[in-house]
Amino acid sequence: MKTKQLWICSAIALASSAAHAQSSVTLFGVVDLGVQYTKGAGAGSVRALSNGGLSTSRIGFRGTEDLGGGLRAGFWLEGSLNPDSGTGRATNTNNQPTGATTAGGLTFDRMSYVSLSHDSWGEVRLGHDFIPTHYNSIYFDPFNANGVARAGNLTFAGVGTGPLPTAITGSNTVSYWLPGKLGGVYGMAMAGTGENDSSVANSDDGNFAGARLGYASGPFDIAAAVTRSQFSSTAAIGNYTHANIGGTWDAGFAKFFALYNRVTVKLAAGTVRKNTAEIGAHIPAGEVGRIRLSYAVLDDRSDSGLRTAGGLARSGDDARQLGAGYVHNLSKRTALYGTYARISNKGEARYVVSGGAAPASGRSSSGWEFGVRHLF
Amino acid sequence: MKTKQLWICSAIALASSAAHAQSSVTLFGVVDLGVQYTKGAGAGSVRALSNGGLSTSRIGFRGTEDLGGGLRAGFWLEGSLNPDSGTGRATNTNNQPTGATTAGGLTFDRMSYVSLSHDSWGEVRLGHDFIPTHYNSIYFDPFNANGVARAGNLTFAGVGTGPLPTAITGSNTVSYWLPGKLGGVYGMAMAGTGENDSSVANSDDGNFAGARLGYASGPFDIAAAVTRSQFSSTAAIGNYTHANIGGTWDAGFAKFFALYNRVTVKLAAGTVRKNTAEIGAHIPAGEVGRIRLSYAVLDDRSDSGLRTAGGLARSGDDARQLGAGYVHNLSKRTALYGTYARISNKGEARYVVSGGAAPASGRSSSGWEFGVRHLF
Amino acid sequence: MKTKQLWICSAIALASSAAHAQSSVTLFGVVDLGVQYTKGAGAGSVRALSNGGLSTSRIGFRGTEDLGGGLRAGFWLEGSLNPDSGTGRATNTNNQPTGATTAGGLTFDRMSYVSLSHDSWGEVRLGHDFIPTHYNSIYFDPFNANGVARAGNLTFAGVGTGPLPTAITGSNTVSYWLPGKLGGVYGMAMAGTGENDSSVANSDDGNFAGARLGYASGPFDIAAAVTRSQFSSTAAIGNYTHANIGGTWDAGFAKFFALYNRVTVKLAAGTVRKNTAEIGAHIPAGEVGRIRLSYAVLDDRSDSGLRTAGGLARSGDDARQLGAGYVHNLSKRTALYGTYARISNKGEARYVVSGGAAPASGRSSSGWEFGVRHLF
Repeated sequence: MKTKQLWICSAIALASSAAHAQSSVTLFGVVDLGVQYTKGAGAGSVRALSNGGLSTSRIGFRGTEDLGGGLRAGFWLEGSLNPDSGTGRATNTNNQPTGATTAGGLTFDRMSYVSLSHDSWGEVRLGHDFIPTHYNSIYFDPFNANGVARAGNLTFAGVGTGPLPTAITGSNTVSYWLPGKLGGVYGMAMAGTGENDSSVANSDDGNFAGARLGYASGPFDIAAAVTRSQFSSTAAIGNYTHANIGGTWDAGFAKFFALYNRVTVKLAAGTVRKNTAEIGAHIPAGEVGRIRLSYAVLDDRSDSGLRTAGGLARSGDDARQLGAGYVHNLSKRTALYGTYARISNKGEARYVVSGGAAPASGRSSSGWEFGVRHLF
Repeated sequence: MKTKQLWICSAIALASSAAHAQSSVTLFGVVDLGVQYTKGAGAGSVRALSNGGLSTSRIGFRGTEDLGGGLRAGFWLEGSLNPDSGTGRATNTNNQPTGATTAGGLTFDRMSYVSLSHDSWGEVRLGHDFIPTHYNSIYFDPFNANGVARAGNLTFAGVGTGPLPTAITGSNTVSYWLPGKLGGVYGMAMAGTGENDSSVANSDDGNFAGARLGYASGPFDIAAAVTRSQFSSTAAIGNYTHANIGGTWDAGFAKFFALYNRVTVKLAAGTVRKNTAEIGAHIPAGEVGRIRLSYAVLDDRSDSGLRTAGGLARSGDDARQLGAGYVHNLSKRTALYGTYARISNKGEARYVVSGGAAPASGRSSSGWEFGVRHLF
Repeated sequence: MKTKQLWICSAIALASSAAHAQSSVTLFGVVDLGVQYTKGAGAGSVRALSNGGLSTSRIGFRGTEDLGGGLRAGFWLEGSLNPDSGTGRATNTNNQPTGATTAGGLTFDRMSYVSLSHDSWGEVRLGHDFIPTHYNSIYFDPFNANGVARAGNLTFAGVGTGPLPTAITGSNTVSYWLPGKLGGVYGMAMAGTGENDSSVANSDDGNFAGARLGYASGPFDIAAAVTRSQFSSTAAIGNYTHANIGGTWDAGFAKFFALYNRVTVKLAAGTVRKNTAEIGAHIPAGEVGRIRLSYAVLDDRSDSGLRTAGGLARSGDDARQLGAGYVHNLSKRTALYGTYARISNKGEARYVVSGGAAPASGRSSSGWEFGVRHLF
């Protein structure tokens, strides 16, 4: 049967020797889609096909080459997908609003880098990658930063007058990662550039830097991170700092999650300050099931003058989010899931469950989704 | 020799056991290009490199996982290509003109879905896919909806004042497919949503639904389908219904084709009604050759007030199309082909052979192409 | 171990016989990123992450099928990447400014074609490909048309009032390649069409044709090429001719390079005429190192009236470029490199090292980059 197959092989491999036997190029991805219903109290509702309710849909290519002596080279190219329409997602070329690309075609907007790594020295990556704080947002949210109940519904919405280019990933970056054998200590640091000519105004715009340090041992995992992005053109988007700390504890009967975020954006009209705290748990249910729960609160301490600037929230425009879901694994690759989320807005806050219909000011947003996630 | 190759393998596979021996991830595609000359009587001509004269050029990734007990999970990501320029094709995110993406980058505009299927129960797909009626347009047209002589030259042109987002594929869909073992009966049903907030005007725009039912036995295959798309904003694009029925009969010395389409679009200025009937044949010519013939007539019964609205045709603006071609298979993967098509327009009709130069009103459009199609 | 892997196999292969044992589909690519600093004298500087300092970052799919009797079919789909942001690059659909696509999503902007080839007859390709002159620009520049020191910094900048669509690749092309067994003689010819309707004004715009002929024997390789693109709309972009001749001589202790380019663009405001000559060398340094050197001069003979038209250079606005670099191969796939380049501008010339900050008129541009290139 194997002789009937037309093998796909790397061009390099064909031209080189068995020395590459330990090297590999991997095609991988996720297709995760669900049916979703969301409702904004005092407003409308939306019936939608949701993307990535459990894991972000994506396609990627990655590989490593063993160079001997503990040294490895590697690459990673991974792009988000919206399989409900067959589109890819936009990325940003200069970490500034002017660098936003047009959404539609496939880009490698998640990770796109070349890497040199060593067992003892750690790893250096050049390219486009997640910023340090986003790793905490993924690992210490029981909903892994995905779906209607993700913690980011409260953390990142309305922090600037436009989308923050470096809220999740950054371009033009160099990062250093600690090696794996440090007795449980792990960490990385990253710097990126907006690539502006030094002779133009606000030439530091789009520069950013951050770091993450963690410790994992047995059932415990804890990490803290900070990322600071520079924007001197304070009219539209300001200096932006995101700091967070989180952890998990696997108690066997349940795995507990905690995550605290502090976001500050300096705008011309005032400073946005948002502090969010989330706790949650994964509870095994039978051999293949897992219940997911989370509760998050947002304490908005933004300057009061901001409300008129683009509908931004101010102090007192707080919110709470409750998330509950169930994941049923049909295999290691395929899972069914259902998730419910409800946000209670206060003051004039209008936070929305991911993908949902905006509620009236101070009213609740809620939604559920049922989906299938398939890995390849 | 195999040890010299650098295998590309799925991330999942590397991390898992021989239980996946029956699973696979497949890379596949088509590159089909030709030289084309088209002429519009009373107007100009175009010399072009044509795409997909025999099969739509594309690249895709698909896979299935055997979950046991007759159950399978799978995914499909397939995007059209224009290899004459290296571009992908646009798709549409909300089944409405506002959701049209910018053409250029690769998208999975043909099929992009996750699937659960069972030998006895059938299959459920979530994602982006061909609408029910388009399957008849492909299978019961001797030119398989491709090239200068495709039946769609008459069926879909000029039915709205802009392109119909759901004429071929739909986004945000759920579909159900009958299982394979029903004694020759096959079928599917599909619904899709425009994902509009219920509180906005025309919130049903972009919703659509359809179904297809067929019967195949021995040399016979016949199927009927209907797809209805909702558009309450009747100014630019109206409620759109496409119904068709078609079949093939393989008589040995030739395979005969028949296809009848009825398209209705309700615009503010009146109703577009187009009925097209096509007959055709594939005639084997030697061991590796195949002659393709088709004859199609369009009976336009649109309201007379439409002619001033965007140059749309009206009753009496009829047309006939003749198609003739030859396919020479060099192997199962590679074929040479040549196709000729001629459309005779009546009244003020200006139908054009695919990719061609527009003729003067009521004059003929004709063209030929010679190409190479290579599957991988 | 192999049984644990989930092989990716071609759809065709699975359905066909061992006759395809000699066929293959190949996934391949390059990820090349570096840190770069460039400075424009009398102006500013830029700190950037550079793409493709040694080789253009890219991803591609290609394959061949052995049809027997010396005949082969094949395809090639290869797109540039900017891995510093995860984007692909734009291409052009009609060889004219109106056909420029929006940058962002992955396109197969480098090569996208289907091919039939024969051991004795040569090869015919249909699709999108490099124009004949660009092959000389790659092979006879010691920096292979990549990075801060590439020869193209002088050759192609400022030759039109906008980017020339067919300066590097062309769409809608047919090309013929001589077979391999001609005693060292090699060559190809290409024609492409703008696909305009003959009834519109300037219907020849975007048509182009060219050829390349070379001879390689032992340590010598020499080739000449010419490409001529038609643009009758002389206001924005004019008839464009690029001719070049180049060669290499591998003397063992060093490999020497020489390249001469002549570029002419007929604009309404006058004719741009740029002649560039470059010499250079690759000098082996140890078993895995290679020093790269180049020196190029630009003699601008453009009409004097051009300077006011879009800042174009005119006669006397000459420049010289010095390039020096080192490549350290960690393996056949992975290399570290460093490159320095300096352009001395004369008159009011403002040529810039690739990716760099523009200098003041007549002042120098310089820059360096250190990077990692990984092939897969």
